Amino acid sequence: MKEMLKIGYIGHGGRGKYHIKNFIKMPDCEVVAVCDKLPERADSMEALIVEMTGKKPYKCTNHKDMIANCDLDAVVVCTDWNMHIPISLDFMEAGIPVGCEVGGCDNMNEIWQLVETYRRTGTEFMMLENCCYGQKELMVLNMVKKGLFGEVVHCDGGYRHNLCDEILTGEEKHQYRLNNYIHRNCDNYPTHALGPIAKILNINHGNRFVSLTSMASKSVGLNAYMEYTDIENKKLKGQKFNQGDVVVTNIKCANGETITLNLSTTLPAFYSRSFNIYGTKAFHHEDTKSMVMVGDGIDLESEPWKNHWGNQEEYFKKYNHPIWVEYLDEGISSGHGGMDYLVCRAFVEAIKRGTKPPIDVYDAAAWMCISPLSEMSIAMGSAPVAVPDFTYGQWIEPDTECRGKYSLNEIVDDPTVRLYPEGKKDKKEESHATDVLA
Amino acid sequence: MKEMLKIGYIGHGGRGKYHIKNFIKMPDCEVVAVCDKLPERADSMEALIVEMTGKKPYKCTNHKDMIANCDLDAVVVCTDWNMHIPISLDFMEAGIPVGCEVGGCDNMNEIWQLVETYRRTGTEFMMLENCCYGQKELMVLNMVKKGLFGEVVHCDGGYRHNLCDEILTGEEKHQYRLNNYIHRNCDNYPTHALGPIAKILNINHGNRFVSLTSMASKSVGLNAYMEYTDIENKKLKGQKFNQGDVVVTNIKCANGETITLNLSTTLPAFYSRSFNIYGTKAFHHEDTKSMVMVGDGIDLESEPWKNHWGNQEEYFKKYNHPIWVEYLDEGISSGHGGMDYLVCRAFVEAIKRGTKPPIDVYDAAAWMCISPLSEMSIAMGSAPVAVPDFTYGQWIEPDTECRGKYSLNEIVDDPTVRLYPEGKKDKKEESHATDVLA
Repeated sequence: MKEMLKIGYIGHGGRGKYHIKNFIKMPDCEVVAVCDKLPERADSMEALIVEMTGKKPYKCTNHKDMIANCDLDAVVVCTDWNMHIPISLDFMEAGIPVGCEVGGCDNMNEIWQLVETYRRTGTEFMMLENCCYGQKELMVLNMVKKGLFGEVVHCDGGYRHNLCDEILTGEEKHQYRLNNYIHRNCDNYPTHALGPIAKILNINHGNRFVSLTSMASKSVGLNAYMEYTDIENKKLKGQKFNQGDVVVTNIKCANGETITLNLSTTLPAFYSRSFNIYGTKAFHHEDTKSMVMVGDGIDLESEPWKNHWGNQEEYFKKYNHPIWVEYLDEGISSGHGGMDYLVCRAFVEAIKRGTKPPIDVYDAAAWMCISPLSEMSIAMGSAPVAVPDFTYGQWIEPDTECRGKYSLNEIVDDPTVRLYPEGKKDKKEESHATDVLA
Repeated sequence: MKEMLKIGYIGHGGRGKYHIKNFIKMPDCEVVAVCDKLPERADSMEALIVEMTGKKPYKCTNHKDMIANCDLDAVVVCTDWNMHIPISLDFMEAGIPVGCEVGGCDNMNEIWQLVETYRRTGTEFMMLENCCYGQKELMVLNMVKKGLFGEVVHCDGGYRHNLCDEILTGEEKHQYRLNNYIHRNCDNYPTHALGPIAKILNINHGNRFVSLTSMASKSVGLNAYMEYTDIENKKLKGQKFNQGDVVVTNIKCANGETITLNLSTTLPAFYSRSFNIYGTKAFHHEDTKSMVMVGDGIDLESEPWKNHWGNQEEYFKKYNHPIWVEYLDEGISSGHGGMDYLVCRAFVEAIKRGTKPPIDVYDAAAWMCISPLSEMSIAMGSAPVAVPDFTYGQWIEPDTECRGKYSLNEIVDDPTVRLYPEGKKDKKEESHATDVLA
């Protein structure tokens, strides 16, 4: 096992700026190289590391220079959506394991390239899907594994997040969303919702996504937003956007489960990932932070639901995932309620141990491909489209090769998996686990 | 205008037993004839009317006898789903206007028969969709008509109601649901969710449903329920049910709006009709009884949604539909939070005035056909199916002939529409409008 990891870091936009600190602060990681295509951003990454550690990293504006000049144990890719896969492929070819930020993808071919590159090189690729490490998501996973949900039958998921301002005013920040909204029409951001659901439904481990249909509403939200706010970017007035304001995608699984994903990013609404899990013995509902379980004494016929809003807290006390029990004990650090830290930590641990990452290349392929597949379905009047089997048939084995030891599915029973390297604890920021979603 | 209506009433099952009282109690209605195919039920209807009014109604077990022997101003059909349309057709042929309880339907042909019979005979048919008269549904309709939602883009709707007990133990009560769940697989109960949404989206009045896709989960909820409860009906053990536990249907409208309907009736979960309305300037969310409007000062980026749960009450104060302002002023009567009474009242008023009913035959056709169309889509692997235009092209006119004067869409601006006949008020039961959903 490696004691100290040398990490390269690519991208210092909105997300990258924030995320890099998680790695800088870890006592068993050193961010030795940074890269952004914009020189001023590369400079600011360098300055940040100098400020936090006193050491100066290698710096470049082309990730290929980093590959040529640095000896790295892993790289973190935190760029715009379009560059996630191309950059990852270059590092995988060089034998450097990749942790990649989330997003959909552009077409099916690049997803296949990702899978094939992994199969040929054996270089690990982990999607850093933080929502897989959310407290409620892991509690439900824990309960499902213990059989407390009975058989899971249906899952809702979503990304309801009013991003009008970010989409329309981001030009000067090299915001990549705008052109996606002008030109494409699909579920462009499926993984926050789908990742945790896929883990619950054992996707790629005895189950898989078989087909989907997708439907997009008209696109009027961004134009309405420009009307009722005094937006600065005047040249976008009258702009036509192809992206429907709401895109709903239904996915069918091999074992008969269904999933509904709702993407809504250009209308005024409260944030939600709509994590509603329907089992034969329990039901979890995100928006009211509530649950009901057969046998818990709640009478569905006569008790008003309102009386149980927020009862999630009681279930946390009983059923928190072991990783969260430990984490709360240690003190939450980092943002998004702590899940950002946990997913980074999972990546680092997998690299150190040389184990398969908990969100592997097959998971990433199955989740990211929802973007181009939903685009196809919408283009064909919501016709059903088949989801490929990226595992080449291995999905029918619960313990297929594409599943690592350090897996979300197994961590429940693995007390050896620690969040922190023994004796070395990093400095925590003060924040709370719940109610911090953005 | 008729001063007093002679009403026939068909069906004294779970719903009929309850609903008939609304009509018996109205001072401008007399239930002069009752019918149920089961003699003991017909007897109990008779006994109820004698008890409540001192008068004895005509009684029969075949609705055709009622048609032959009674002089009626209207009939209310409150039977099992399968008989809704056949019985209605017989009354329409006889020139007797029909108020019909809700449900889906069996096939497209009977829907067309309903439409064609109306076109040939001119006899009115109103679907008694109580949820169109719910307080929150009418508040949102009111706000949409006033432009406060901006442009409505997407609507969620659903029927999440754990009916396992009713489905499985209803045999001795002649419960018709069981065979539907054994044999069919569709959204068998679309109208509670879809009716209010259709009114909001001006369906048949400048808009229409164009196509849909539907997906059904596996069916394991009823069998699980039999396992974890000690159900009496032992002969159902091991029964195979075709009806998926969760059926999700996406509907596309001519003007680009989308609708997601979620039917979930065989899993343990809190009741909801998931009435979530997404506009460019406002959002209504049923499960948290909350709303957000552009300009109301709620900061979506930084304020936790939880702080606004239940804020619906504040919006009721400002934006209650006029019919509800009056109704709350008069005192709520009848069940389901008052909407049962309101829909019955709307039917009675339309008959008395000789105006088009607010939920007419074209509305009923568009809403009920979702059952067979979702069945087709599911049978064809979620392929999209077209929704017929039952109006023969009239839908493109906002004021088409199929829209009555006494319409939900116009009632906002029509102060002459009263809930109660002047000077005659019926006896109210004490109950509250909110939190009574079943």
